[in-house]
Amino acid sequence: MSTAKIRLYVEHPLGEGQTVPLDCDQAHYLFGVMRQRTGDALLLFNGQDGEWRATVAQASKRGGELLVEEQTRPQQNPPDLWLLFAPIKKARTDFIVEKAAEMGAARIIPVQTDFTNSERIRQDRLQAHAVAAAEQCGGTFVPDVTDLQKLDRLLGNWPDNRHLMFCDEALAGANEAVRQDGHAGLWAILIGPEGGFSDAERARLHALPFAHPTALGPRILRADTAAVAAMTVWQQRFGDWA
Amino acid sequence: MSTAKIRLYVEHPLGEGQTVPLDCDQAHYLFGVMRQRTGDALLLFNGQDGEWRATVAQASKRGGELLVEEQTRPQQNPPDLWLLFAPIKKARTDFIVEKAAEMGAARIIPVQTDFTNSERIRQDRLQAHAVAAAEQCGGTFVPDVTDLQKLDRLLGNWPDNRHLMFCDEALAGANEAVRQDGHAGLWAILIGPEGGFSDAERARLHALPFAHPTALGPRILRADTAAVAAMTVWQQRFGDWA
Repeated sequence: MSTAKIRLYVEHPLGEGQTVPLDCDQAHYLFGVMRQRTGDALLLFNGQDGEWRATVAQASKRGGELLVEEQTRPQQNPPDLWLLFAPIKKARTDFIVEKAAEMGAARIIPVQTDFTNSERIRQDRLQAHAVAAAEQCGGTFVPDVTDLQKLDRLLGNWPDNRHLMFCDEALAGANEAVRQDGHAGLWAILIGPEGGFSDAERARLHALPFAHPTALGPRILRADTAAVAAMTVWQQRFGDWA
Repeated sequence: MSTAKIRLYVEHPLGEGQTVPLDCDQAHYLFGVMRQRTGDALLLFNGQDGEWRATVAQASKRGGELLVEEQTRPQQNPPDLWLLFAPIKKARTDFIVEKAAEMGAARIIPVQTDFTNSERIRQDRLQAHAVAAAEQCGGTFVPDVTDLQKLDRLLGNWPDNRHLMFCDEALAGANEAVRQDGHAGLWAILIGPEGGFSDAERARLHALPFAHPTALGPRILRADTAAVAAMTVWQQRFGDWA
């Protein structure tokens, strides 16, 4: 039995004996780039059914078929954590999505703030980054990346039962560590844009009953660093690192 | 008094009334790229004397002079934390150095492990990344980036009084959170390379009395993510986030 090294995300139900058709891109990747042949083994996941070992049943240039054999890992979902961030330069935005998938965010929400310079994002490209991160990092879950949303409107329709860990670079060095007491339940993390929040946004955020201002140490962190650090803090306190 | 937005690292003593000569690169950046003129204000730091407000006293294409006026922030050094990591692809190596500077590492040590693919690094380029990160993030300290060192030899000459938080992707999901009890003092963090440590390295690391195997949650993290997450864990427990 060959060892499966390739992990592929597919949008298809997975179960013992199931066949999975391959589209043109997947066939190109598996047979062209990765040189897989009939009988070779790989790992599949679809974000819902855990991880499965499969073998190549048919291979052609434009398609093919995989045969699902046995489950290698059960489905493992991260806690129901949302990550809200303001899109920045393309490379760092991609990084934040990748990091959020690795660190176990359930939903990734790009937000438009007063100082956000992007008017739009490529949701499909960011979602593909989340898939690639899950493929590489052994996860069985892929977080949803939503379309760009206005922070203003999002806060106006905020769900009653969700806390917001609001990371403000203006708090660097302040004694505002996230409190451990009594805040279990649903959470979201909000990372500010380069240049921080506007005064109006900051005032509103500090006044919201569900928002918890949080300092991430004494140094000012870039948004992508802050995202990983904040998710580490949260996963340790409330999430699946405990 | 104009507001100083530019922060520049200089290798020169800083104090009230001190003049600081500019080299050709610095003059090009300040006067060519950033369009500063005589009388404009900027912030300087040298890694030792805190942050100072200075004004442009002389400007020319190939040089110039700054006049140091008053201290704007005292020197703030991070805890004496070393970050050891195995250099990976260029972009991610640059990121790790940048993140280590932001997260408050005092020394950054690229190490050669059994599965490290780089034979050499550009120490000067990595040091420049650490300087750029300090300039951008408001720090007054710049971590030293050392030359590439063999992990083997480094562990052989390990200082008696320094703990090693050893982050092994093979521990993902294991109950090996870093312990809070009685391990104050000097520390280093070791992040494994892509592909993990070799069996021989892992056996040796687990046997070392100063090494503390540490899991970073249930998911496998890329090296750059692991570096930020591990520094977050450490700074919260033992460092200056407490």
